[in-house]
Amino acid sequence: MINALFAARPERWETYEAPLKAAFVANGLKVDLRQDFAPEDVDYIVYAPNSGVQDFRPYTRCKAVLNLWAGVEKITGNETLTQPLCRMVDPGLTQSMVEWVTGHVLRYHLEIDRSVALQDRWQPYVPPLAEERPVTILGLGALGQACAKALTQLGFPVSGWSRTAKDLPDVTCHHGSDGLKPALADAQIVVLLLPDTPQTENILNAQSLGFLPQGARLINPGRGPLIDDTALLAALDSGQIAHATLDVFRVEPLPHDHPYWAHPRVTVTPHIAAETRPLTASRVIAENIRRGEAGEDFVHVVDRERGY
Amino acid sequence: MINALFAARPERWETYEAPLKAAFVANGLKVDLRQDFAPEDVDYIVYAPNSGVQDFRPYTRCKAVLNLWAGVEKITGNETLTQPLCRMVDPGLTQSMVEWVTGHVLRYHLEIDRSVALQDRWQPYVPPLAEERPVTILGLGALGQACAKALTQLGFPVSGWSRTAKDLPDVTCHHGSDGLKPALADAQIVVLLLPDTPQTENILNAQSLGFLPQGARLINPGRGPLIDDTALLAALDSGQIAHATLDVFRVEPLPHDHPYWAHPRVTVTPHIAAETRPLTASRVIAENIRRGEAGEDFVHVVDRERGY
Repeated sequence: MINALFAARPERWETYEAPLKAAFVANGLKVDLRQDFAPEDVDYIVYAPNSGVQDFRPYTRCKAVLNLWAGVEKITGNETLTQPLCRMVDPGLTQSMVEWVTGHVLRYHLEIDRSVALQDRWQPYVPPLAEERPVTILGLGALGQACAKALTQLGFPVSGWSRTAKDLPDVTCHHGSDGLKPALADAQIVVLLLPDTPQTENILNAQSLGFLPQGARLINPGRGPLIDDTALLAALDSGQIAHATLDVFRVEPLPHDHPYWAHPRVTVTPHIAAETRPLTASRVIAENIRRGEAGEDFVHVVDRERGY
Repeated sequence: MINALFAARPERWETYEAPLKAAFVANGLKVDLRQDFAPEDVDYIVYAPNSGVQDFRPYTRCKAVLNLWAGVEKITGNETLTQPLCRMVDPGLTQSMVEWVTGHVLRYHLEIDRSVALQDRWQPYVPPLAEERPVTILGLGALGQACAKALTQLGFPVSGWSRTAKDLPDVTCHHGSDGLKPALADAQIVVLLLPDTPQTENILNAQSLGFLPQGARLINPGRGPLIDDTALLAALDSGQIAHATLDVFRVEPLPHDHPYWAHPRVTVTPHIAAETRPLTASRVIAENIRRGEAGEDFVHVVDRERGY
């Protein structure tokens, strides 16, 4: 029997208990998973940096600390942690981004909000077909490419923009500062999936919002600083942008007095588009315990000098 | 120059003029498309049965009547119509059904209504991944199969039910009266795409709604009589069904005093899921004019004895 300590906030136990136990069984592992053990009995720690466990010295038998979070910056400096530390690289995160982006693109495409709100009369509205609804994705990394694939499979003509040149099947690719205008020129729906860098900050500003056709819709599950918020609010007020669905912000949680909350043309979602998912994260944890027990190398081990 | 009379209600001109003209150009056809011609000058009639044209005798030169509607029951008995009559078989109809069904499945999956309504606080809600959200499609004809394919591509586990046995890749297929219970047993979202026959009437009734897990969601873009409305309203009130999105009804437009309109757990949409689309329908019209001019057989010619 392998003893695994679940060291995360108590409310996460409910979320993770079943998928972790299922993943252990699927890997042929006999694991006793608990929220409490005598430290010297623990073989593995399933860990969240905001849990109570900060002193790892009593865990003398522990073979690895398996982080539930992608981010490890809160523990790489902890000198009591001498065991291998593995960060979370969750395939469910990309999948959840694809589901969220596809869902909100179809919401705009089909005008679902209007359908849901108009519960007082029979007023047929037939949207164009997906092939008549150009979508542009800014950012063609792993997430942007996965979303582009799902949208092209549904029939949307997809254009993309990235800093450096890319060549992707079924995606009209633009790049560099000269490429932004043609990338946005016919986009009815724009999806932001760029990283947050000095080059991408405020990439959607008064000028580039003007490159879009009037009435375009905007979806930002990427990073808050990609948008010049003042320019976006002005574009929403003028009708240049018909609607925006924003999942990420410069300050999170979005402050209660921020104009996005009350704006009739903005949907705020609370940074949920891509989140570590218990189902797939549990499989990563179980795989690392399997490796530990088989004497194989762990995956996603953190280099604490480098910090990730 | 080919003279094509557009004989549909005047408000349809706006919808069809551009796509028809584009489809003619794409087929290399020089067509003069107008809403008015001297009858003896007309080569083809692009036709809707509710237009003013009912006497076809003056159209002495007309080579074919090209219906914009799938249904031809209103003109097959017209004895003045001696030209070939072609009905509309629109590939856009299947595509639009796929887009609509996928959009509403994702709306339920991601709880988009909740996201849109909750514009007052930061309350993260992380849905399960698609692979954890079983969807069952009742009806595995052309529409059901196309929807199943789109949903499996997004990661949903899809089960299906049909009257007779089917074998489809990536779909768990059930059939016959004994197969309905297992088909519904773990469905979190049910999509109705059965035809309206004596065997399928009220297929969702008090008993079969009880086969579903509590809190299932229902999407009906198929046919109104598939649902026992009284049983559905009771299941919505009890919470057995958490929400229903209904696009088709026994009586359409849905009467203003029908309880579905005001029910907080029902979204009524006005029979829009699958509709003939100007873009793709125009391509079918243009293809038939091309065939007529080339001396080839028309496609989708109606056998007026048989009635379709």
